[in-house]
Amino acid sequence: MTPEPGSPLPPYAARLARIREAIAAADVHALLVTHPPNVRYLTGFDGSMGALLVARDLCTLFVDGRYLTTAHALISRLPELSPVSVALVEGGHEEAIAGSIPADRGVERIGIEAAAMTVSRFERLISAMRDTHSASGRAVPRLVPLERIVEEGRLVKDQTEISTLREAARRLSAVARDILPLAQAGRREREIAADIDAALRRAGFERPAFDTIVASGPNSALPHARPGDRRLHPGDGVVLDFGGVYDGYCVDLTRTVQLPPRTGAFGHLLDAVGAAHDAAIAAVAPGVPGSAVDAAAREVLEARGLGEAFVHGTGHGLGLEVHEEPRISRTGARRGDVLRPGMVFTIEPGAYIPGLGGVRLEDDVLVDAGGCEVLTDVPIEQASAVPGGARQDG
Amino acid sequence: MTPEPGSPLPPYAARLARIREAIAAADVHALLVTHPPNVRYLTGFDGSMGALLVARDLCTLFVDGRYLTTAHALISRLPELSPVSVALVEGGHEEAIAGSIPADRGVERIGIEAAAMTVSRFERLISAMRDTHSASGRAVPRLVPLERIVEEGRLVKDQTEISTLREAARRLSAVARDILPLAQAGRREREIAADIDAALRRAGFERPAFDTIVASGPNSALPHARPGDRRLHPGDGVVLDFGGVYDGYCVDLTRTVQLPPRTGAFGHLLDAVGAAHDAAIAAVAPGVPGSAVDAAAREVLEARGLGEAFVHGTGHGLGLEVHEEPRISRTGARRGDVLRPGMVFTIEPGAYIPGLGGVRLEDDVLVDAGGCEVLTDVPIEQASAVPGGARQDG
Repeated sequence: MTPEPGSPLPPYAARLARIREAIAAADVHALLVTHPPNVRYLTGFDGSMGALLVARDLCTLFVDGRYLTTAHALISRLPELSPVSVALVEGGHEEAIAGSIPADRGVERIGIEAAAMTVSRFERLISAMRDTHSASGRAVPRLVPLERIVEEGRLVKDQTEISTLREAARRLSAVARDILPLAQAGRREREIAADIDAALRRAGFERPAFDTIVASGPNSALPHARPGDRRLHPGDGVVLDFGGVYDGYCVDLTRTVQLPPRTGAFGHLLDAVGAAHDAAIAAVAPGVPGSAVDAAAREVLEARGLGEAFVHGTGHGLGLEVHEEPRISRTGARRGDVLRPGMVFTIEPGAYIPGLGGVRLEDDVLVDAGGCEVLTDVPIEQASAVPGGARQDG
Repeated sequence: MTPEPGSPLPPYAARLARIREAIAAADVHALLVTHPPNVRYLTGFDGSMGALLVARDLCTLFVDGRYLTTAHALISRLPELSPVSVALVEGGHEEAIAGSIPADRGVERIGIEAAAMTVSRFERLISAMRDTHSASGRAVPRLVPLERIVEEGRLVKDQTEISTLREAARRLSAVARDILPLAQAGRREREIAADIDAALRRAGFERPAFDTIVASGPNSALPHARPGDRRLHPGDGVVLDFGGVYDGYCVDLTRTVQLPPRTGAFGHLLDAVGAAHDAAIAAVAPGVPGSAVDAAAREVLEARGLGEAFVHGTGHGLGLEVHEEPRISRTGARRGDVLRPGMVFTIEPGAYIPGLGGVRLEDDVLVDAGGCEVLTDVPIEQASAVPGGARQDG
């Protein structure tokens, strides 16, 4: 949690100021931030349980005893955050939050993060507000379900975030170049997954960003296969999909290789997905809807008779979460997502044919003024030309 | 997802039958199961996104295209589950679920899992029910927030779960015995964490059950520290807390070592937490409230002036989630949790003193008729007598 000496601090003050504007625009007097990545985005606090109450002249971070030392150290190290106070939660979070709301400052409508708060917690919070405030003779603060208040800010990355994501993608690419040659006939999926996770740690990642996927032969036709005890066979297609969390930020990459002997059918699949991948990246630009990028990939696969085999969206946003906005998918248009410079997301078309196998190719891109910068850098050619791929060593 | 040949299948039919009884008792006509561990518990489906609608004569698993092949294969392999049908979700999950409810079978009140469903999803589901059913002229199905319906069954493990947890704990103990000697002066926290994660994979775990903790020196005083670049120093206390997921089930273990030269102050802390750990395990028995087990540990630490230093609960349930019920804590009593044979949880008292360091000792126990079986098996003596601990090799 300690910032590296010399590395610039995230612009917490600017982020908080934007939230205060959004609070006013949403016609509430305060926002209760409970989604952990949002709490981290606004304060740097990265505990699994914490809540931040932001009002016009109030900012309180609620933590339990496990995190008290960390929270105080964090706040004291970051002068930008000095208006934040830390509140120790000793009983229930809901009671502590309700009890902290001053009765005399007109905090009557409090927004909550509806996309992250459970129905149970919402009901407990309503009860706690009633229990705490109904005796005061004033109005009980009312909870207003809101969405995408903090997420709207996270959608466009600032310079500190872009630096982190660039560095993370550089390290992930190095991991990919090192580990692709380890996909060899005779080795088990699970062993290769372990190699990948160890390489991620060595490369400085805090942890894998999700469960590493190594899916070989028939398993490659399952987009979300889990690595198992299956040994790779000559001629197998192998999907390797992995990511890492670096200084809190997630990057994600997939390559698919075919072990020798190559087959025409699998090669056709690789070529088709490669063409879809390139078309999607070429379509990325400010002002373009995410759904148009999805369509660019989908049209290439449909033209090759693989429309039905592309069973997922083309990409997802990356940041403090490994799946965040924008969604690069057919339904992305519903939300009216239009790409803006500073957005970071994956491009990962795939095609899956039970019996033959599956292919997915994934890179991470940053929208810039002219189109996009591809943050990951792993030759796709290398993926389909694994040296020594037929050697039996397992 | 394929069961090992010869290993007994979980009793899915009995689990579903219990849910149907609970549905009737809760005065609803159906339950919508959306919490992924609950969906897995009832069907074996372990995708990240799925929903199960259970009524008296209906059981439908909703999955999107990514999981369709897996879901069909799963259902067809498990004849016990044959009343389950698989529904492909092509648009929104909520619309698919609402549209699947037959208008003519009296499904008027549908329970939802309030502790896992977000407020946003709840509101979308209410809208989808209204949009789908208001045209039919019949009553729109009403959603009823419920809690702990499936969890109540998961609280007491059945024989297949106990076998899995025993084997998982055996493997985790072997990992612990191998890796504790790797905590040596000169090595970085992050390197040791990587060693642990690699050892977990080699031992057959699907993945770490949570982010592995290696907290040394001053960091050991933070109960939820993250492994960083700090190198271990002679005399450091080092908390190593890690767990693994084995066939879906989570186990969790902590040992604390002091690298030579040992100090009396840290030794006092180790002894005190060791005594609290033993007292808590001795207190575990059927009929005892979880809060009494917590109190047994807390009294030992309070008697040694360390009550304030024990900033968390004594333990948490283990199963398909790494933190589940029962909670072994001061507040556990609020829920009236009384221990029953077949419950599995951690015992993990700790004491944290900023400046001096922290100690936590954690084992996993299974409540049995006479008290408990300690599933993990790692000598605590070994923890405080690391061979060659002072050797510089990093």
